[in-house]
Amino acid sequence: MEPDALADGVRRGDRRALARAITLIESRREDHRRTAEDLLTLLMPATGASIRIAVSGVPGVGKSTFIETFGRHLTAAGHRLAVLAIDPSSQRSGGSILGDKTRMEALSRDPAAFVRPSPAQGTLGGVARRTREAILLCEAAGHDVVIVETVGVGQSEIAAAGMTDLFLLLLLPGAGDELQGIKRGIVEVADLLVVNKADGAMAGAANHAAAEYRHALSLLRSGTGAWTPEILQCSSVTGEGIGKVAAAVERYRTTMASAIAERRRAQARDWLWSEIGEAVREAMGRRLDAASVSAVECEVAEGRLPGSVAARRLVESMIK
Amino acid sequence: MEPDALADGVRRGDRRALARAITLIESRREDHRRTAEDLLTLLMPATGASIRIAVSGVPGVGKSTFIETFGRHLTAAGHRLAVLAIDPSSQRSGGSILGDKTRMEALSRDPAAFVRPSPAQGTLGGVARRTREAILLCEAAGHDVVIVETVGVGQSEIAAAGMTDLFLLLLLPGAGDELQGIKRGIVEVADLLVVNKADGAMAGAANHAAAEYRHALSLLRSGTGAWTPEILQCSSVTGEGIGKVAAAVERYRTTMASAIAERRRAQARDWLWSEIGEAVREAMGRRLDAASVSAVECEVAEGRLPGSVAARRLVESMIK
Repeated sequence: MEPDALADGVRRGDRRALARAITLIESRREDHRRTAEDLLTLLMPATGASIRIAVSGVPGVGKSTFIETFGRHLTAAGHRLAVLAIDPSSQRSGGSILGDKTRMEALSRDPAAFVRPSPAQGTLGGVARRTREAILLCEAAGHDVVIVETVGVGQSEIAAAGMTDLFLLLLLPGAGDELQGIKRGIVEVADLLVVNKADGAMAGAANHAAAEYRHALSLLRSGTGAWTPEILQCSSVTGEGIGKVAAAVERYRTTMASAIAERRRAQARDWLWSEIGEAVREAMGRRLDAASVSAVECEVAEGRLPGSVAARRLVESMIK
Repeated sequence: MEPDALADGVRRGDRRALARAITLIESRREDHRRTAEDLLTLLMPATGASIRIAVSGVPGVGKSTFIETFGRHLTAAGHRLAVLAIDPSSQRSGGSILGDKTRMEALSRDPAAFVRPSPAQGTLGGVARRTREAILLCEAAGHDVVIVETVGVGQSEIAAAGMTDLFLLLLLPGAGDELQGIKRGIVEVADLLVVNKADGAMAGAANHAAAEYRHALSLLRSGTGAWTPEILQCSSVTGEGIGKVAAAVERYRTTMASAIAERRRAQARDWLWSEIGEAVREAMGRRLDAASVSAVECEVAEGRLPGSVAARRLVESMIK
């Protein structure tokens, strides 16, 4: 398909065009990749006008249910929402996040929402690169809120934090117990902490947990900066507290407007240099053969060759 | 100087040879750089046998005094210590960290210790690259403990964490107040937290602060993994508690031996790819001219060009 026609479709907000565009950027075929890059270049002027939210938390914290309830709240308020995912495990597990069609059922049927499963192939790096591009496509299609869902298993949170404006971490009411599996440093980096399942028999525990987190963060966090991370409670089942989460997001967006702009510039620069690294790695694999690059990498990893020396050798032989 | 002769001097533990070797790796002259890389390559088999400790904390927490007291304790116990620094501000401020010769006076005169000021030139990236190489030189010279001191202003802690086995964060007895200026996520990443100045009128406050941090970390940290971060107290003036800090470091080294080895492999790989990025950036600057690379970087930062598209263009025109 011609990138111009597809770009028109995306810009019109045509859901099928958006879905096809994302499939195109996920493709590994070289000709698809060229078309995808043309498409992205065409659409760049239409991107940027959303708030990008990472939603993270351990399995069992209720991410899908939260996103469904939160998402319905947003679309009812007139927003257009896109939900993407970073789940590098989806290949192995046969598609965990969003792969199950019964999840986020109401949101999937909502005409103001676009729910897309995680790319089912590739390494974390590969999945993250494509998710970053998918954010841009969703913005070009007029979605003004983009949620990137992650699985709570280490590096995918870091990747999500590197492409979003706000990091929302879901917590369980049993304070402290549920952090197993969350990478060190993530709690402290979150902009918004939401104790989920604050309903029924757990309401008291949720209150207690929120107070505990508030105290712990006040100890471990710098008091500087325009934004003090908020700790909220909600029930994704009853919907209680969801409005306050949406209000906090809006407050963040307003208060942090210039900080968000600066963060995006830094993220884009990091993106460029990480893509250059990928492009160089590919070019090295073609020109020097992948096995010898791996052999050098192994020498460095085992402490037999300094990284600086190995880097110079590889780059010099590549551009010779 | 011939790299072989200098390598011999370093291996013999000759302090002047070590100092000259570090000066060599800090030099930006192209011929010096070549010699430095030959030197490092020669010395690699003699590296790796130290525990690498990052020591961080805000200005005023007493890093120099702590390192002096801790260092004297280590050398008295038979260790050979090297103290390096990452202080990208030293150029601007005219040399803050270790630049003042009166600091760490006793340690500097200790024959079992080698104290080196931060390279006084360059960006954080440049300083960090040279510090990473200086660690290897110190190990080759027989130092079995290498301390990397950082200033508590943001990115230098991240750089130090990326080249050490253990992150030791110094805290003041006024719990919570002193974290201003420490980058978010650093407290949570620390392996060892030491409340300094636990003496005199502050002893009670230090006790209280340690208990508070212990509670906060138990809430915010995953309970998994072989190591639970310890919160200790010490006085760098009276020396009280310093022995316990040394014992905790030793316990960490033993308990985490295989985790440290794995961490070093990952750090070395990251080092390689970051050096490749630097080498590519330099090669691009030579082949494409630096202004046009900057122009593309700016287009990406402003959201006018996708990072993936820009990366491909730059790399393709470089290796054409």
